[in-house]
Amino acid sequence: MLLHLPLGFRFAGVHAGIKKNPAKEDFTLVHCPDGATAAGVYTTNLVYAAPVAFDRPRTPAADVRVVVVNSGNANACTGERGLRDAQEMARLAAAAVGVDEKQALVMSTGVIGVFLPMDKIASGAAAAAKALASDEAAFMAAARGILTTDKGMKVASRSVEIAGTTIRLAGMCKGAGMIGPRMATMLCVIATDAPLSPEAAQAALKTAVDDSFNCISVEGHMSTNDTVLLLASGKAHHSPPTTHHSPLTGPALATFQHALNELCIELAKQIPDDGEGASHLITIDVRGCRTKDDARQIAQTVANSALVKTAIAGGDPNWGRIVSAAGYAGIAFDPAGVDLELNGHTLYMRGSPVAFDAKTVSSAIKQVRETSIILTLREGDAAIRFWTSDLNVDYVRFNADYTT
Amino acid sequence: MLLHLPLGFRFAGVHAGIKKNPAKEDFTLVHCPDGATAAGVYTTNLVYAAPVAFDRPRTPAADVRVVVVNSGNANACTGERGLRDAQEMARLAAAAVGVDEKQALVMSTGVIGVFLPMDKIASGAAAAAKALASDEAAFMAAARGILTTDKGMKVASRSVEIAGTTIRLAGMCKGAGMIGPRMATMLCVIATDAPLSPEAAQAALKTAVDDSFNCISVEGHMSTNDTVLLLASGKAHHSPPTTHHSPLTGPALATFQHALNELCIELAKQIPDDGEGASHLITIDVRGCRTKDDARQIAQTVANSALVKTAIAGGDPNWGRIVSAAGYAGIAFDPAGVDLELNGHTLYMRGSPVAFDAKTVSSAIKQVRETSIILTLREGDAAIRFWTSDLNVDYVRFNADYTT
Repeated sequence: MLLHLPLGFRFAGVHAGIKKNPAKEDFTLVHCPDGATAAGVYTTNLVYAAPVAFDRPRTPAADVRVVVVNSGNANACTGERGLRDAQEMARLAAAAVGVDEKQALVMSTGVIGVFLPMDKIASGAAAAAKALASDEAAFMAAARGILTTDKGMKVASRSVEIAGTTIRLAGMCKGAGMIGPRMATMLCVIATDAPLSPEAAQAALKTAVDDSFNCISVEGHMSTNDTVLLLASGKAHHSPPTTHHSPLTGPALATFQHALNELCIELAKQIPDDGEGASHLITIDVRGCRTKDDARQIAQTVANSALVKTAIAGGDPNWGRIVSAAGYAGIAFDPAGVDLELNGHTLYMRGSPVAFDAKTVSSAIKQVRETSIILTLREGDAAIRFWTSDLNVDYVRFNADYTT
Repeated sequence: MLLHLPLGFRFAGVHAGIKKNPAKEDFTLVHCPDGATAAGVYTTNLVYAAPVAFDRPRTPAADVRVVVVNSGNANACTGERGLRDAQEMARLAAAAVGVDEKQALVMSTGVIGVFLPMDKIASGAAAAAKALASDEAAFMAAARGILTTDKGMKVASRSVEIAGTTIRLAGMCKGAGMIGPRMATMLCVIATDAPLSPEAAQAALKTAVDDSFNCISVEGHMSTNDTVLLLASGKAHHSPPTTHHSPLTGPALATFQHALNELCIELAKQIPDDGEGASHLITIDVRGCRTKDDARQIAQTVANSALVKTAIAGGDPNWGRIVSAAGYAGIAFDPAGVDLELNGHTLYMRGSPVAFDAKTVSSAIKQVRETSIILTLREGDAAIRFWTSDLNVDYVRFNADYTT
């Protein structure tokens, strides 16, 4: 794998002992020695974790130097002590890399309701600081250090030419369960060497998240810890260096936005594709709506229906489950104007069933991992694309016995 | 089983050939020879089935003579032809028992998107009309005739003394999958010999449904066909007969309402208890809310979380999933004021975890079929009780292969 790693960052992932398996990294540092503009998008769950409480008021920011992440423990539902632990985790990471604790951001993911093992956080920070490097192996180790039930790491990168300068973006994210939409939906760190003002970084991140991490679900359970951070070092430069300190604006910012959107979609799709026990990645296109929010609400309701998800898992073209899920999404539409297409087969047209060969469509679902559902209304021009996983017995087996 | 069967009704359940298994009834008639007051509560799904379109404008009604039900085919998402089929089904049933087609109501349940086999509906109506009787065996056959994936029939009855008169209520319902709240959630027919005006019947049914069928879920998928009908023959009488034609009002109506509420709760609980693949019936009490709607919204969100349901299935006291589900219910509350009790064990108090022995609590879940979750907020005095099933691999196995 050859990643486009942005300039101005160092990465590390080590085993601090929070996860039992000593072969698994559980502690990650992202270090920006000369500082980075930082933007954040967080869970909208009212019950949010201590790291979210810590980071939210600190972003957008002009000068973040370190992001510290642990996996295996979410530091969520841990009350006042959890808040003190998050602060201490930031202090330990900042001290380990020699920056001010005000320049640190914190993320945690894992089991809810257990206090952080602060001795392991302390030793992890020291070990990770020593391991920091700017090469691909270090980035990969960092990407592994944020995983929990994920089958593998989730990374993506881009390089884009903007006014003669090569701008690089590289992101890592995690998430396979407790994935519900309308928020950031997991942990993600995106690093770029683009020069961005804090306001532009925040606006660009929000735009990108809206069409990516806010368009995915596994089972629709909104997590307490979801955080997406964008760090922009501004280190991309002309050769020879010229104006690399001047933040992107206008068409240059639009080009960056486009690259960021694509990067976020590439990262976000990896989450339902790795949904716990998933055998299908389902892409749901909802079209012909009055507004994009209408389309999203319908797509999300279809995506979260256990009946739709089990039908796809079994290769069962039980399209009535899709249409009926749209019907209880809470969005007004004319049921007589609905079309449905499943993997290219039209099954429902203007509110009436279309005769089809069930075996052919069943095979079309079973033979490929990617399933396409296209639901078209006749209400307007707004559309959305949403991704989810199917629901298999392995999801249930896995989640019936997570903490005990 | 000894049921309190109301006077003024005859029942029949026969095999009409809609279900493949000839040992299974799939066609039910409820006949009220002298007429009954009728009230109805229906799905709020925008995509509603033809029988719902047929019945809704016909209730409340002063003089219904026959209710015809088929299982094995929902007559949903069937367009204009489906509407004509529902009308024809009403006409066939009315003709078979010799009443006007305007005095008939229709219900269907089963697979979505397939046209009704009208020849079987016709022969079923004729056969069922011949089998009509007012005894318990006939009631039981009728109760079996409305089932689909249910493991067994769901019936309940009550008798209550009101001003010297014995009033009887008997209900049958069906439902095990595609069960979501905020509507009637399945098919149910309740017969009583109480004298009720159409308006009083409608108001009483709505009140009873609100705390029973609107407080249950299996996987949260709202059906296209859900209907609860209340039929009141007014045949209960003093001995010797006196004022049995005068509709109940005041305290007499309140006594009837109480009996109807209890009957509906007894019927409704049987649905998640028989949830597809379920090994636990989960009772969720949400207390200390500002309004009952707030409490319902939180209870419903917890009930529909696949992560909560799989945890209970596995005997895993992973309470963070319960608290985090409450947090994304969309209801404002102070997370620092939340307590959680699971099968009598306090696990979370005022927003902080309480130390507990995981093995003890896990055993407490595994050893009994009924699980109790009590979530207490500190926002007000409103409360609700909600019932759901857990989520097992058998639910997924069953629903991955329903139509093919």
